[in-house]
Amino acid sequence: MYLILYDITETPIRTKVAKLLEKEGYERIQFSVFIAPFNPSKNRLWLKLEKLLATTKDNKIFCLKITEENFYKIKTIGKFEIDLDYLSGNKSSLII
Amino acid sequence: MYLILYDITETPIRTKVAKLLEKEGYERIQFSVFIAPFNPSKNRLWLKLEKLLATTKDNKIFCLKITEENFYKIKTIGKFEIDLDYLSGNKSSLII
Repeated sequence: MYLILYDITETPIRTKVAKLLEKEGYERIQFSVFIAPFNPSKNRLWLKLEKLLATTKDNKIFCLKITEENFYKIKTIGKFEIDLDYLSGNKSSLII
Repeated sequence: MYLILYDITETPIRTKVAKLLEKEGYERIQFSVFIAPFNPSKNRLWLKLEKLLATTKDNKIFCLKITEENFYKIKTIGKFEIDLDYLSGNKSSLII
């Protein structure tokens, strides 16, 4: 699993990044945190993100790989309406 | 490594959570993201976080374990002033 987190001050850029991530199949699990079972280097997503941030200074994006085992051991406090099987790609349709 | 991420709307609670995490030795790597090489279940930190959020509804805290290997493969865009050896506990003093 790949977790993408960002700290972006400019709203227009933050919106573009969020839309790009959603378009590429990443699920938002928190305001500035997305997750998906595929590597952002695939289909040049990481290059696109670098381009979006190229003109700015203080913005940051991190990507961390998480083993599926650790992903399933996620600890949560508060409402956590996320289908781990769907997010990890072990289930193709989301049951709402 | 343990990554703690939160989405907390009330500023007073968010401040208390951040101070508690810093007091327990977690390093802030992003506005609402902290990391440390120890499990938050240790020294009852997770219980303390649950208590802080008990009176609220829409707030969330996640904790994800990250292997040291994956932590060192972190991908970044933007300024990333973080000493991976220090954060992972492989070096005791931080060189600034």
